[in-house]
Amino acid sequence: MGSGLVSSLAPRIERVAGRLPRRIFVVTSPEIWALWGEAVSASFAEQPVALFLPVGEKHKTLVNVEKLARQMISAGGDRSALLIAFGGGIVGDVGGFLAAIFMRGIRYVQVPTTFLAQVDSSVGGKTGVNLPEGKNLIGSFHHPLAVFADIGVLGTLPDRELRAGLMESVKAGIIRDRTLVRFMEEHVDDVLRRDPKALEKVIAASVRMKAEVVNRDERENGLRMILNFGHTLGHAIEQVTRYKVLLHGEGVGWGMVAALQLAKTRGTVSSRQAERLESLVHLYGPLPPLNLRASKLVAATAADKKNTGGVRRFVLPVGIGDAGVVDDVTPAELESAAAYMLARAAERHP
Amino acid sequence: MGSGLVSSLAPRIERVAGRLPRRIFVVTSPEIWALWGEAVSASFAEQPVALFLPVGEKHKTLVNVEKLARQMISAGGDRSALLIAFGGGIVGDVGGFLAAIFMRGIRYVQVPTTFLAQVDSSVGGKTGVNLPEGKNLIGSFHHPLAVFADIGVLGTLPDRELRAGLMESVKAGIIRDRTLVRFMEEHVDDVLRRDPKALEKVIAASVRMKAEVVNRDERENGLRMILNFGHTLGHAIEQVTRYKVLLHGEGVGWGMVAALQLAKTRGTVSSRQAERLESLVHLYGPLPPLNLRASKLVAATAADKKNTGGVRRFVLPVGIGDAGVVDDVTPAELESAAAYMLARAAERHP
Repeated sequence: MGSGLVSSLAPRIERVAGRLPRRIFVVTSPEIWALWGEAVSASFAEQPVALFLPVGEKHKTLVNVEKLARQMISAGGDRSALLIAFGGGIVGDVGGFLAAIFMRGIRYVQVPTTFLAQVDSSVGGKTGVNLPEGKNLIGSFHHPLAVFADIGVLGTLPDRELRAGLMESVKAGIIRDRTLVRFMEEHVDDVLRRDPKALEKVIAASVRMKAEVVNRDERENGLRMILNFGHTLGHAIEQVTRYKVLLHGEGVGWGMVAALQLAKTRGTVSSRQAERLESLVHLYGPLPPLNLRASKLVAATAADKKNTGGVRRFVLPVGIGDAGVVDDVTPAELESAAAYMLARAAERHP
Repeated sequence: MGSGLVSSLAPRIERVAGRLPRRIFVVTSPEIWALWGEAVSASFAEQPVALFLPVGEKHKTLVNVEKLARQMISAGGDRSALLIAFGGGIVGDVGGFLAAIFMRGIRYVQVPTTFLAQVDSSVGGKTGVNLPEGKNLIGSFHHPLAVFADIGVLGTLPDRELRAGLMESVKAGIIRDRTLVRFMEEHVDDVLRRDPKALEKVIAASVRMKAEVVNRDERENGLRMILNFGHTLGHAIEQVTRYKVLLHGEGVGWGMVAALQLAKTRGTVSSRQAERLESLVHLYGPLPPLNLRASKLVAATAADKKNTGGVRRFVLPVGIGDAGVVDDVTPAELESAAAYMLARAAERHP
């Protein structure tokens, strides 16, 4: 993590990979490459080959992975090739998955360019694509050699994306780090006006939390599941709106509102704690309106990857800075939490 | 390895997987399932869900993997699901890859139903699909919980497929097991009329050889490459004929003929050894005719996965029962070996 990483990638990659291979590929989006392509290329003696993935969740498909793989073959890519995933979370997930399955696996590095990707998707080795039936249903665990999080590139990030990304930091605080909760409550303005010190503090705490959880449970057999706090209904919202209306973090923001309500009903957080944490979510809003039906959202949670053997798993915060996983949440409880969330959305967008 | 395994899979899988999960999927071909579906299903209390892959190399695609994954989701598949790859090498490769990337990896077992799959593709954890540019360019290393090789199912295998599969055993002998070479020379008739004892002997020796090599080098950084003996030109033949004319083993058979010639020219085998080993290949033939041009075959070897950093790797037998990898074979040497092979094919199919 630092500034100026993007323009010095070649020596940095050489330090982790040894001698640079003959073919280096950059999976990126046309928009990001227009802004940063020159800076990236500058440090390489031989120009890396840029491969483009159009922006948007709907392009996170196996068909596109195949297209990129074919371009790599055409450009002389082989097992010794190295891939740089340079972009937001979608580029990271698709680029990482491409690296995982190209000739049964090649080396890669992550260079996340959004706040969300820096604090969340670039850490933990999860890669993959969507199916029409749901998000990330196809994928691999494939760890990058290194993650280079350059705070400098966040300067060009749209405000809405920053706020959406910050939802994962809010999540990190709620499930694992009460100090982060307090810092984010007290430094809303600093963080949102992108004060480098405040951003570094939030990013570092978020990455530390995630790395620690993933180190203890890479394959999501236990602890790692708590990272899905807010994601059950968050994914359902994204799915029902076909990934077209909300940013991922916004879905997670609303999902946390619902999960906090469920936690309050179950008594794992007090009313005051639930109120305080829901306020924190809204401090980093606004979250967009939701014109949906609760029953439809509940139906959409059925294909969630967290479910195993027909059991519906759900992450509940426990007080402030802790969380646990339960597997006895009924459809009725889920629907009631979703209804609360939709009512809150209606209040805020009358 | 044994007889009657297919009709007792449920308890056998339970022994390696623990309690059977709620959803068990069988990836298979319609033809194989028509013959053996009832026997497979008989031992399961709850019927496994059969998913069909059409026969043929051209169906070994990412598009088909996606189709199968979507069927699994529709049928309630989740992370706890278990997959049985029940068929020949293509079913094993595609089924194994599907298991590797479905929800980032689920457990599976291999139940190979062809001789080739029993001795070769089911062992070693390689899974994957083809691209239009070449075979197995997309894939994962994903080991099955177990491989159940039932000699009983080989009774329905067409003769041509048996002979093609035996090419991998010939290969096993040439690169690593001179006792197997002698056994196969002396028991041609027993093996080809499928005497169970002779088949078991050949299968056991072939699997032992491959398992030993893979254990020492799973990721093909060194030793494992010798398993590609005969495969450089074998793959090239398959690719140029678009996987429509030859069986895989037949391509490897001809590829070994070419590689033996190259080895003779380089002096890693004597003329007499080359002659003896080429005769062994033909004892398990006939290999089909080849109406191709040597230059085209050489061009087709460029995208070979064994090449790294632009270097063309090639496996050469050393005497009988040993082999090594060289990386200085010139296109001219390759073309001359291919020309020899084409001349031999023309002699045999005037």
